[in-house]
Amino acid sequence: MSEKKRRQPNPANRAAATAASFSASKKSKLPTTTKTSSHAHSLRSQLKPDSEILASLQKLYSEHQKPAKAKTLTLTDLNLTSKCRVVSDLDASSVSLSIERVVLDIAHSILGGRGFSFDVPSRSASNQMYVPELDRIVLKDKSSARQFANLSTVRKATITSLVYGVLERNIHVTKRDLFYTDVKLFQDQSQSDAVLDDVSCMLGCTRSSLHVVASEKGVVVGRLIFTDDGDQIDCTKMGIGGKAIPPNIDRVGNLESDALFILLVEKDAAFMRLAEDRFYNRFPCIIVTAKGQPDVATRLFLRRMKTELKLPVLALVDSDPYGLKILSVYMCGSKNMSYDSSNLTTPDIKWLGVRPSDLDKYQIPEQCRLPMTDQDVKAGKDLLEEDFVKKNKGWVKELELMVKTRKKAEIQALSSFGFQYLTEVYLPLKIQDQDWL
Amino acid sequence: MSEKKRRQPNPANRAAATAASFSASKKSKLPTTTKTSSHAHSLRSQLKPDSEILASLQKLYSEHQKPAKAKTLTLTDLNLTSKCRVVSDLDASSVSLSIERVVLDIAHSILGGRGFSFDVPSRSASNQMYVPELDRIVLKDKSSARQFANLSTVRKATITSLVYGVLERNIHVTKRDLFYTDVKLFQDQSQSDAVLDDVSCMLGCTRSSLHVVASEKGVVVGRLIFTDDGDQIDCTKMGIGGKAIPPNIDRVGNLESDALFILLVEKDAAFMRLAEDRFYNRFPCIIVTAKGQPDVATRLFLRRMKTELKLPVLALVDSDPYGLKILSVYMCGSKNMSYDSSNLTTPDIKWLGVRPSDLDKYQIPEQCRLPMTDQDVKAGKDLLEEDFVKKNKGWVKELELMVKTRKKAEIQALSSFGFQYLTEVYLPLKIQDQDWL
Repeated sequence: MSEKKRRQPNPANRAAATAASFSASKKSKLPTTTKTSSHAHSLRSQLKPDSEILASLQKLYSEHQKPAKAKTLTLTDLNLTSKCRVVSDLDASSVSLSIERVVLDIAHSILGGRGFSFDVPSRSASNQMYVPELDRIVLKDKSSARQFANLSTVRKATITSLVYGVLERNIHVTKRDLFYTDVKLFQDQSQSDAVLDDVSCMLGCTRSSLHVVASEKGVVVGRLIFTDDGDQIDCTKMGIGGKAIPPNIDRVGNLESDALFILLVEKDAAFMRLAEDRFYNRFPCIIVTAKGQPDVATRLFLRRMKTELKLPVLALVDSDPYGLKILSVYMCGSKNMSYDSSNLTTPDIKWLGVRPSDLDKYQIPEQCRLPMTDQDVKAGKDLLEEDFVKKNKGWVKELELMVKTRKKAEIQALSSFGFQYLTEVYLPLKIQDQDWL
Repeated sequence: MSEKKRRQPNPANRAAATAASFSASKKSKLPTTTKTSSHAHSLRSQLKPDSEILASLQKLYSEHQKPAKAKTLTLTDLNLTSKCRVVSDLDASSVSLSIERVVLDIAHSILGGRGFSFDVPSRSASNQMYVPELDRIVLKDKSSARQFANLSTVRKATITSLVYGVLERNIHVTKRDLFYTDVKLFQDQSQSDAVLDDVSCMLGCTRSSLHVVASEKGVVVGRLIFTDDGDQIDCTKMGIGGKAIPPNIDRVGNLESDALFILLVEKDAAFMRLAEDRFYNRFPCIIVTAKGQPDVATRLFLRRMKTELKLPVLALVDSDPYGLKILSVYMCGSKNMSYDSSNLTTPDIKWLGVRPSDLDKYQIPEQCRLPMTDQDVKAGKDLLEEDFVKKNKGWVKELELMVKTRKKAEIQALSSFGFQYLTEVYLPLKIQDQDWL
């Protein structure tokens, strides 16, 4: 069907023609499509046969398939294990075990007359650092022993015990559920959420290992087969809506794919366009979006795909500081969950577009380029100070251009060349030219 | 698997016990679970065998299956067709046709020396009314002829022509895409959105007939099989994440189900609980949520299920004015899309819970009942003035109780009795007692 669609004439021209017949006397009011379709057409003509475009993907793909020459560094390689606090994915029984161990330690401490206390890790900004070799934020090992008298210790005890019950039952719960088990104790959810993060630090396991999940927003479609709680999901048969990404990653398994890359999309409007045009049939790929700010479930899912399938990840985000900020969350993690960055982050995501330099390169019409507010510009300048940007010369240049021109543009701005310009011209051309950073 | 889970002991007690061993000296700080588990247990013991609970569902189900005695009224029956403006679902070719008809009319009007003008329907509040017989808001027929000189006419011409192109191409686009075809003309998206609604009024077809879709948020899981753009989706095999509801309803088809009812859930936390426990295996149902405010895609999907499968709809929302407001959007539609209320609304949704009277009935702990703000109370009082509430005595009583006690509670408040209390006790008991309004 997507084949059929692609062979039909460009709707933009058709629409524009109709519009012309409507508002002949108001030239300046014509849809942008007519004014720029000539240019859009010229770019279209630059497209080589799909076989040649696929070749450049094949190249990228095989680079990612071959075992990395230099093995990926760990905190151990950098002798940082003693200086950093990291958590790992543990199965339910191991987590239960380490909870029981904590309880025992406490018993000993009490019998030893040292009272009831927890060793509480500090997750303050001052206790976090970016490790360039790892290209992610990690948590340092500063921590303090809190006496039982301390309310936060009671909160930890409670959360820990509740988690123990959840694991025993082999179910999953939300942060909101945990909060509601004792509203009086936690007062507001930010409290129980924070305690929860402390507890996973303390137990040295990921939050997903505690079977506590956040609500998921992400959807996936394309060349991927996986099991969700035992059900086999074929993402080439998920229509246009796609498959909702499961909140509990530990119930996800058996990933299989014949895709050449993963296309990470910021917004669901672009996702819908790609899904309806079955872009993944023309260029074998897995298309995923978190519909804006990435949620934990989508970040875990992306990492699983990247590591298990060894696929390159190409990102399509708005050309504004927030588009890049979103990329940074996928790549380096967010500060408040730095202790879990090794499991949540997906290194080496390529910035495919929409990039500031694309605005001129693809002659995005002036009125589709929005002026950046002072706040936008500040956000852009702040990003230029971030290590993960600095280490990528190409990104620095693009960001500098954005801040200089003070112009931003959304992915949807490409609709000004016709609604399917994204899937029929922009993306194929980008891939053909291997135009990613 | 859900079978297995159900047979295991209540995690709340287990967790509470562990907590007790932790914080023995701090009784008042114990999770609520211990304090109330005795009551929770007494309710659990009231549960009859599933076969008897299913019987009450079977009864509800068959009531909905038999053809309605009094055929559902239409505007025609009420002689309101001349006074109201309604739209209907049209296929692409019919819409294209009516667009061409509009163009012809305009041509005639020009040749007749009457110039280029549109008949623009008014969608102002003053032009809307609630029709009790239909139990929904409808748009009255006030409209005004606008001359071409008028900017809004140019906008309509442009949108209409773009839609024409979209239909010709047999694709779907988002409102955002439409806006970006001519940012200069529309200035901001609220403009192009409004024009879009005007155009569907003018053409007498639904917005989905124009192939313009909003982004979807909804997910569905349970005893439903349907096709999404030709792909067959079996919602009993969608794991815990569920299937994302497609943005374009016209690509949805072939609905089949052996469910006895549809369970409409306000929040995704409750959805996840129900999905993980495979509630639909114990009580055959289709579980759907829009994750908060209902989006158009989910509303259309719910209506399709209700009308094609003739299933009763039971709603699980927070016990606060917004929970009920959300119900009202599903049932009576939102004011700004009143012209499409017949296609967007699902009449006769039963309010299962959480209802204000449940707070005492299920002894929801005090600290899980949140005080209503003055704004909440006002929202509650406003609802008492709404016709769709007035016509349901039971709802009025519940709302009056809410406003009187000034207490609200979320669905998650039930977690204070154990995380699976919702699926194992609360819902089965509600269904067993046919406790819906």
